[in-house]
Amino acid sequence: MTKTAADLWSDLDELPQPTLLELFSTVRDGGEGADEPGGEERVAMLSGRLELAEDGTDDPMAPGGILFDWSKTHLDRAVLEIFEQLAKAMDFAGMRAKLFAGEVVNPTEGRAADHATLRGVGDEAKVEEAAALIDRMGMLVEAIHQGAFGEIDHLIHIGIGGSALGPALGVDALSRDLSLCDVHVVSNIDGVALEAAFAKCDPAKTLVAVASKTFTTIETMTNAESALKWLRDNGVSDPGGRVIALTANPEAAVEWGVDETRILPFQESVGGRYSIWSSIGFPIAMAVGMDDFRQMLAGAAAVDRHFRDTDGRDNLVLRAAFADLYYARVRGCQTRAVFAYDERLGLFPDYLQQLEMESNGKRVTADMKPVDGPTAPITWGGVGTDAQHAVFQLLHQGTHLIPVDFIASIGPGDDLDPAHHRILLMNCFGQGAALMTGKKGEDPARNYPGDRPSATILCDDLDAATLGALIAFHEHRTFANAVLMGINPFDQFGVELGKQMAKAIEQGGESFDASTEALLAAAGLND
Amino acid sequence: MTKTAADLWSDLDELPQPTLLELFSTVRDGGEGADEPGGEERVAMLSGRLELAEDGTDDPMAPGGILFDWSKTHLDRAVLEIFEQLAKAMDFAGMRAKLFAGEVVNPTEGRAADHATLRGVGDEAKVEEAAALIDRMGMLVEAIHQGAFGEIDHLIHIGIGGSALGPALGVDALSRDLSLCDVHVVSNIDGVALEAAFAKCDPAKTLVAVASKTFTTIETMTNAESALKWLRDNGVSDPGGRVIALTANPEAAVEWGVDETRILPFQESVGGRYSIWSSIGFPIAMAVGMDDFRQMLAGAAAVDRHFRDTDGRDNLVLRAAFADLYYARVRGCQTRAVFAYDERLGLFPDYLQQLEMESNGKRVTADMKPVDGPTAPITWGGVGTDAQHAVFQLLHQGTHLIPVDFIASIGPGDDLDPAHHRILLMNCFGQGAALMTGKKGEDPARNYPGDRPSATILCDDLDAATLGALIAFHEHRTFANAVLMGINPFDQFGVELGKQMAKAIEQGGESFDASTEALLAAAGLND
Repeated sequence: MTKTAADLWSDLDELPQPTLLELFSTVRDGGEGADEPGGEERVAMLSGRLELAEDGTDDPMAPGGILFDWSKTHLDRAVLEIFEQLAKAMDFAGMRAKLFAGEVVNPTEGRAADHATLRGVGDEAKVEEAAALIDRMGMLVEAIHQGAFGEIDHLIHIGIGGSALGPALGVDALSRDLSLCDVHVVSNIDGVALEAAFAKCDPAKTLVAVASKTFTTIETMTNAESALKWLRDNGVSDPGGRVIALTANPEAAVEWGVDETRILPFQESVGGRYSIWSSIGFPIAMAVGMDDFRQMLAGAAAVDRHFRDTDGRDNLVLRAAFADLYYARVRGCQTRAVFAYDERLGLFPDYLQQLEMESNGKRVTADMKPVDGPTAPITWGGVGTDAQHAVFQLLHQGTHLIPVDFIASIGPGDDLDPAHHRILLMNCFGQGAALMTGKKGEDPARNYPGDRPSATILCDDLDAATLGALIAFHEHRTFANAVLMGINPFDQFGVELGKQMAKAIEQGGESFDASTEALLAAAGLND
Repeated sequence: MTKTAADLWSDLDELPQPTLLELFSTVRDGGEGADEPGGEERVAMLSGRLELAEDGTDDPMAPGGILFDWSKTHLDRAVLEIFEQLAKAMDFAGMRAKLFAGEVVNPTEGRAADHATLRGVGDEAKVEEAAALIDRMGMLVEAIHQGAFGEIDHLIHIGIGGSALGPALGVDALSRDLSLCDVHVVSNIDGVALEAAFAKCDPAKTLVAVASKTFTTIETMTNAESALKWLRDNGVSDPGGRVIALTANPEAAVEWGVDETRILPFQESVGGRYSIWSSIGFPIAMAVGMDDFRQMLAGAAAVDRHFRDTDGRDNLVLRAAFADLYYARVRGCQTRAVFAYDERLGLFPDYLQQLEMESNGKRVTADMKPVDGPTAPITWGGVGTDAQHAVFQLLHQGTHLIPVDFIASIGPGDDLDPAHHRILLMNCFGQGAALMTGKKGEDPARNYPGDRPSATILCDDLDAATLGALIAFHEHRTFANAVLMGINPFDQFGVELGKQMAKAIEQGGESFDASTEALLAAAGLND
């Protein structure tokens, strides 16, 4: 008889929990007659390399690959086997097929989730439509670079959430060596954010991108109005002519006053937090050029193909999701941490925080039942080596178990003394080793319990293709987590209530709890 | 008979757990004959305002105050009473007296924790010594501003952890309107970080501050060497003459080649993560001037006095610690979140992350026994309104209970249309209300369970005094948490093992686990 998901979760709960060092010791009985491999065999079992170039390319400039090492997690044969059964019980293969076929995978909003089609993977008609939109963006980007708007040195990109985090990450990660245009991403309604961008831009040489899926987001539209005023106040005669709109609602953009030639639409079926691949990526293309932007898409497509075509534990993405769920549901971890040992990926933990928490921070299943266990943990993290001097104390000696991902690049991003990059990598690997092995000592304050898991994602280089692959890996990892928990990762109704409350406050006439009333009075906002 | 801490923790576990809405409903039986106040009385009971100006000042430029509203947490009379008993059982008053008397409160390192003396509060001799060091820093800052080093437009501040987060926060929060010097904080060993600073500075007009308590931190010393090389390569004839050292080990700075006149020492008894008030704050003073730096100290001193002189639940800091521990130990929260609804406080969550997690992420008590419950939760957060579009989905509809702090300023930081700041504040208050009240609906995907706690810290304005007060509030909150858990917040041995491992890798000759060996091989670092 096939086991249900509930059976499999209790099977997982009842498994023995060997320590990492036990798992790394030499071959042991893995139960049911199978040997559990230790040492190098364990590393071979739980590490895999993904090549980013198309098979058989002989382009010397083709991107390299990424190594995914999950051996320092508590995954073992027994855990993997149960998770593979869980994937069957939750019809993972069927849901994945739906995703790539462009069928509805977001039932509450009746939508497909078509972000992979932007990378050229999925339903043929949708891929064609996506390619046409990206070509259109490419033409505008190239026209601007060639001077169609006069000399343009600065781009103020206005958007929030999914319309800000991707652009900010892409620009920060990829344009450090050479930037074709100085991009400032402004998201916060706090005017301080917009003023900081103004201070760095020459209005005569500045374009404004307004990015909003609905073109109604209050932060974005308020900031856009203030940006137009700034252009006008600083002698730009046709400020509206400097606006590029990035939206899935072109009608609203036209109504707001943007000329159709400067509207770059994207598909309703592309979610905000999956929209970096669409025209929302315009500022990235402005900064690094369309060739690099297309490389980013190609790197993501390599992950799409691997994720679509590989089954069970050999699927590097699915394997990561197995570990995520093991820690979240079997070991009670309320968080997972991501440390990028690369300054260029400083915004990556923030990007993942939105992707994972907004997608999977849910309490009902896709068929509207209460979930049967905890959903998304809190994603947090930072940059190595900085974080070692801030939060690693708790990782090593605190009372909470925190699964950690390390991300690093073999190729350096700097041209300084190679000691910088060498020390960076040695610290990254040293931390993973220390978390796992720990250290016993006479002095209790200098005791490190060890047995703390980490995964390492080691890139050959941090180029555009690799960044695209890293993001796509985490998109699909998030999707795989959702499918195995039975939830819909593509809606986000949780963000509505707070917005409604803020609006109710603004409109007045309603009364709130005594604390909120007192705060409004203190701030002089209750009239 | 007096109850032990263990008794009191079980008393807390056994208390009834009314919802926030129940707590806000009108007067109810609070047990033991006492009435539990609801509504406005509850707000009055759990809100307090701290004035930052010295009593009786008639200076019209004197700073305002800060409102601390803890009413939307699950604290009630019964919880407060038990925590007050716990404070007695853990000799909170005695430990606090030791802290302010400059006695040893860091037993593993045999040190006092003298950061309050830098604000003029504590042992008289230590206060005098601290004032003299700050005066010395002031003279150097003013000399530089007056041209003693020629035209200086840029400062590259090199430091990591406690030597970086404070300076970065202070400069970012306070120097947006007027910066006397363009400051770049560089921490990461990744050369990309230093190169980003180089790209923004004119070597002929740049000073370099090297900040390290021990003057041996590998990241800082490596970056300092590379910064000197950059100055030299760019035609600066005496690069060493451009270095200011900020350290508790002046001998090491002299040995490294810094002239004594350019060394700004601080006390061994000031911990790295408590050092913003010392010469580590030099870059803040460079950016905003000594007057503002001293205002920051004065704001912190106002908190010192309140924390030192107020007992029990009326102590706003101690009350916050009660709530922290209630969630961490009674409700099983592994995290707490901080959202600054102010772009200027964008780095504040990172600052708190270090302060709290490095201080209290421990597993043994101050007398070397295993702790009797979870210690520091993971501090995470972000900036409002941005975070609403990224992580608030999980706050509202996820499965984890997360206590939230909101921080906002009534006075705006921008000169744009007042709508920006008004919408910002309304969103801040609206989110707190929404988290607490929730919303029931027909559609399970649009159900918000509510009963999610938040505290609000509402500042009159975000000036230097207020920033100082906010930081000092959290320093003492961290200390109070530690005392109530019986741990030493002032050491950080947890960071040692990873560093040792990295060093062992660098020195070679040792073998590591199979995963680490494979990673080293992949990166070409195993020869």
